[in-house]
Amino acid sequence: MSNLRISFPDGSVREFEKGTSGRQIAESISRGLAQKALACEVNGVVRDLSFPIEEDSTLKILTWDDTNGKQAFWHSTAHILAEAVQALYPHAKFGIGPSIENGFYYDIDFGDSVIKEEDLAAIEQKTAEMAAKNSTFRLYPVSKQEALDFYTSKHDNEYKRELIENLNDGEITFCDQGDFTDLCRGGHIPETGLVKAVKLTNIAGAYWRGNEKNKMLTRIYGISFPKKSMLDEYLTLLEEARKRDHRKLGKELELFTFSNNVGAGLPLWLPKGTELRERLERFMRDAQRRMGYLPVVTPHIGNKRLYITSGHYEKYGKDSFKPILTPEEGEEYFLKPMNCPHHCEIYKSKQRSYRDLPLRFAEFGTVYRYEQSGELSGLTRVRGFTQDDAHIFCRQDQVKEEFMQVIDLVLYVFKTLDFTEYTAQISLRDKVDRARYIGSEENWEKAESAIIEAAAEKGLPTVVEYGEAAFYGPKLDFMVKDAIGRKWQLGTIQVDYNLPERFELEYVAPDNGRERPVMIHRAPFGSLERFVAVLIEHCAGKFPLWLTPEQAMILPVSDKFGDYAKKVAQFVKNYDLRASIDERSEKIGKKIRDAELQKVPYMLIVGEKEEAENMVSVRRQGQGDLGTMSIESFVNLVESEIKGKLAQVEKEEV
Amino acid sequence: MSNLRISFPDGSVREFEKGTSGRQIAESISRGLAQKALACEVNGVVRDLSFPIEEDSTLKILTWDDTNGKQAFWHSTAHILAEAVQALYPHAKFGIGPSIENGFYYDIDFGDSVIKEEDLAAIEQKTAEMAAKNSTFRLYPVSKQEALDFYTSKHDNEYKRELIENLNDGEITFCDQGDFTDLCRGGHIPETGLVKAVKLTNIAGAYWRGNEKNKMLTRIYGISFPKKSMLDEYLTLLEEARKRDHRKLGKELELFTFSNNVGAGLPLWLPKGTELRERLERFMRDAQRRMGYLPVVTPHIGNKRLYITSGHYEKYGKDSFKPILTPEEGEEYFLKPMNCPHHCEIYKSKQRSYRDLPLRFAEFGTVYRYEQSGELSGLTRVRGFTQDDAHIFCRQDQVKEEFMQVIDLVLYVFKTLDFTEYTAQISLRDKVDRARYIGSEENWEKAESAIIEAAAEKGLPTVVEYGEAAFYGPKLDFMVKDAIGRKWQLGTIQVDYNLPERFELEYVAPDNGRERPVMIHRAPFGSLERFVAVLIEHCAGKFPLWLTPEQAMILPVSDKFGDYAKKVAQFVKNYDLRASIDERSEKIGKKIRDAELQKVPYMLIVGEKEEAENMVSVRRQGQGDLGTMSIESFVNLVESEIKGKLAQVEKEEV
Repeated sequence: MSNLRISFPDGSVREFEKGTSGRQIAESISRGLAQKALACEVNGVVRDLSFPIEEDSTLKILTWDDTNGKQAFWHSTAHILAEAVQALYPHAKFGIGPSIENGFYYDIDFGDSVIKEEDLAAIEQKTAEMAAKNSTFRLYPVSKQEALDFYTSKHDNEYKRELIENLNDGEITFCDQGDFTDLCRGGHIPETGLVKAVKLTNIAGAYWRGNEKNKMLTRIYGISFPKKSMLDEYLTLLEEARKRDHRKLGKELELFTFSNNVGAGLPLWLPKGTELRERLERFMRDAQRRMGYLPVVTPHIGNKRLYITSGHYEKYGKDSFKPILTPEEGEEYFLKPMNCPHHCEIYKSKQRSYRDLPLRFAEFGTVYRYEQSGELSGLTRVRGFTQDDAHIFCRQDQVKEEFMQVIDLVLYVFKTLDFTEYTAQISLRDKVDRARYIGSEENWEKAESAIIEAAAEKGLPTVVEYGEAAFYGPKLDFMVKDAIGRKWQLGTIQVDYNLPERFELEYVAPDNGRERPVMIHRAPFGSLERFVAVLIEHCAGKFPLWLTPEQAMILPVSDKFGDYAKKVAQFVKNYDLRASIDERSEKIGKKIRDAELQKVPYMLIVGEKEEAENMVSVRRQGQGDLGTMSIESFVNLVESEIKGKLAQVEKEEV
Repeated sequence: MSNLRISFPDGSVREFEKGTSGRQIAESISRGLAQKALACEVNGVVRDLSFPIEEDSTLKILTWDDTNGKQAFWHSTAHILAEAVQALYPHAKFGIGPSIENGFYYDIDFGDSVIKEEDLAAIEQKTAEMAAKNSTFRLYPVSKQEALDFYTSKHDNEYKRELIENLNDGEITFCDQGDFTDLCRGGHIPETGLVKAVKLTNIAGAYWRGNEKNKMLTRIYGISFPKKSMLDEYLTLLEEARKRDHRKLGKELELFTFSNNVGAGLPLWLPKGTELRERLERFMRDAQRRMGYLPVVTPHIGNKRLYITSGHYEKYGKDSFKPILTPEEGEEYFLKPMNCPHHCEIYKSKQRSYRDLPLRFAEFGTVYRYEQSGELSGLTRVRGFTQDDAHIFCRQDQVKEEFMQVIDLVLYVFKTLDFTEYTAQISLRDKVDRARYIGSEENWEKAESAIIEAAAEKGLPTVVEYGEAAFYGPKLDFMVKDAIGRKWQLGTIQVDYNLPERFELEYVAPDNGRERPVMIHRAPFGSLERFVAVLIEHCAGKFPLWLTPEQAMILPVSDKFGDYAKKVAQFVKNYDLRASIDERSEKIGKKIRDAELQKVPYMLIVGEKEEAENMVSVRRQGQGDLGTMSIESFVNLVESEIKGKLAQVEKEEV
């Protein structure tokens, strides 16, 4: 009996008998691990725990804490769902049933039966019953002929036959659990009983193999968990996320809209959204001015030559919006997909000296990138967006200092907007394969250590990933956690040795020689569209007071007090506060409810008593009555709230 | 002897004998008119005053005050130039010699002689001599054969022969003056002696008939005047205009640049230009906010559907930048040539009530329009520009009030930026032909009188032009005179009945019925590009203090005072003043001269004494030394200068 050498993720190696399974190895490690084990990864491929290992391999035991563990769990639940559907609809024919980012689906041909959302409860119930039977998942090989026969005589299923036709004989496996058999290549949990909670979340139509020429099948989506409490938590988060969905809130708060005539993925910013956006721009512009950035403005198109020089034409030309031709003169332009080539041309517009560096060109530049219409979503996946872009041209010996300044700026943004949890990922070259990077070894070494040192000196919680750098330079990405624990990537700082080379950028060195500057791309918001989307979801539409489009709503208790309301509005506007009047002839209770829904931070109720005494009755959104006060006192209240907040951030900055 | 009925521009009709000339008629009107007469317009065609009128006609006697009078004067001077050239270069062959917007040119084949700029003085001298001979211009018919013979045996000239070949026999005329004969269809002044001053301004190469396959001729440009003093004034203006040329100053002051890689007519705004532009935007944004405008942001492209709806596709499609196709999905987009269709879509994004109107959507919207590359010039003719655009959607009964508010805004801009002389042109429908206008008679009547009344109530100096309205509504244009007397069109207010119809815009009327809003387009600056160009030329690059990119330059007298200079810079920046330090190791005299050239309003000279006493020595650009003062005093000086200016304008506004 020959031995098997198994390498584990921690680098250790142990020997087992040939044919030992993942489960046996897990048991040999610890009882606890064996109990938590859901599946395993053998040489990087997810396998059932029963899979007999026949040759020297790497092995990772997968639990719920591993992404691939969850995937095996959810894929297995798709089998259980199919078993349930087969019990309820014996004539149903099954297509494919994979796991997805959150859960799984199964595409099913229900024949003459029409399945609606209200049928899901019964199917869900049956799925849970099937799970509770605690059947074992059993994977076994079948010949191509056996497989085809099964899906002809036993279960007539043209979909599975089509899948089998495309597989090689000798590589086909079936999986049984309970009374259900499925064509499957494996990667299951051991028993159905591990699934303690299942929720069927959605139903939709889906063409077989995504091709609209094929039959439309019914796709049932679901998710499952090893504990009932996990499902409850998930549903709560889902509900909370739904309430905060920026597409829903964007509509309710009248921040932005889309129009079919203008085009998919091209947001139209409504007045309140525009004011919010302008305020974010001003906030960033002011911060950048203090840090010595120089603003520039460049056009939204560029000649094809520009993108041939930058290399974008060769790399992305065919996937981007097609070129714009002129009616005469045979010129070719492209919508700009990024601002950097234009900024390189500005750098080149005059001779630069080492004393001029760093030069930091900043632009709120709107760029256009083609995305398939099916990929578009609200403000997070769009075809046109405005980057808070800047390009720093500096000497190699200035990279670290510039990185530190950009980190300061990003953290200033996070703190001002109440993103308190964040991490940073530093992406460096592959440790071995270095042929694919451009730029000298020496410059890379310097830049990589500059980033690592800058992040360390700023005390950033950091992960270093080797092999994740772009071919043209190392980078640092920020990841923030929002108020309900979801992670968003915001803010990238990217070193670039490529564009200075391609554009032949130079500066006059102290010895009068010519040297290449280093370029740093950075965008703390990323894009205004994406940032506003994240911000809406983070604060559930209750923007910080300094940022919110409407800081106060003046609510006259009846039409009689319209004039006094206008006087109050004018007074607070003179102090640069943003206030509107609810002039509708509605009851005051209704006006308050609507203002609460609109998430207006302050409501100023004005009636007979208020007018007589030149006062306002103040209500804070979500908190209630703050009592009656003079208009001056109200203005002071708001101003000190804003100043207090900003002062606190700036103090922390120092 | 039959009679001739002559109609004059004032509508009067008089009878003359058949064959009477324009000169005779002018003499019959008044001696003064006859003396000033240069040529005449018979049925709209410019003729020599000697032209015998044979049939009932309209007649206008042309003087120097008429555009066509100047044209006849300059065209005649081209003949005199040719006479002079013939005297100096007997073998020269003449091409064509037309008048142009300012002056005239003649294209001449000098054979083996090479004519250079330094030869112009002698030719100019000879032209003046020829003019002084006071020869009579004599126009007479010749047969095609006679004409061809003349340009074969008398003066061998293949150019004239080519022109003659394309004319019909019986319609060919020659013109003699002195010893010179030219092929010409007429439109001359009576005698060469009227030309009292002539200046040959330029020399250039020009292909015969503009075709590069033909021979390159020598084009001599010139201008002439009936008084010597007029030439002097013209040359002074030309010199002044050259000094103020925004293309020259834009480069010297580092406001903007162009790049061949980005594309012709697509300005790249450099940091100082961007700051200027941003300040203008902020100024307009603040003024608009006070007036109740709502900011919006829309993308720079729109689906073809949008422009089919708006009618722009049909009208301008083939002359504009070609459509942008998507790599998949077969969509077609256009670069937006204007912002109005996008704003109509925003209007349509929710139901509007009569109580919501007027709605004023404002956007600094960058638009793209194709122009031939040869037509492009600096910032005045570009392919991409940012309009300070807004569209007012209002009820018909609100048009007048909205017009008055827009007039206020335009005048506020003019006053703040020291444009003190302006007129307005109101363009109304043709008095007779009304079929070409869309919209009801009633609405037009109302809108036309609303504009007339609004202009009158605001006391605008106004000209009314009938037949100049767009087919979709009447409009009001502003014309400003700059500091050297040139006129620029700035700011249009345009009523539009067309787009609301095409986009089917509606509002809910008080009776719950649906009505169409009126749309008003307006852009006080026009575009930021054009406005900045005009502003640069108006103020010769010395921008008002509140607007100028650099308000102060700190000039350390030697490197030793660099730290103190930085302290001063930080201090003034804390007060939101814009200041830089001239850190070069140059003599203080040189630094002052350079700052003067850069038109920086204030120079702060810092040396030993200033540092010891915590003071600055202040110099005002173009004025000189203002003495030594504390930094606080300097800040107060600048702040009160700015506030004083703006307060004065706002006071005048009230």
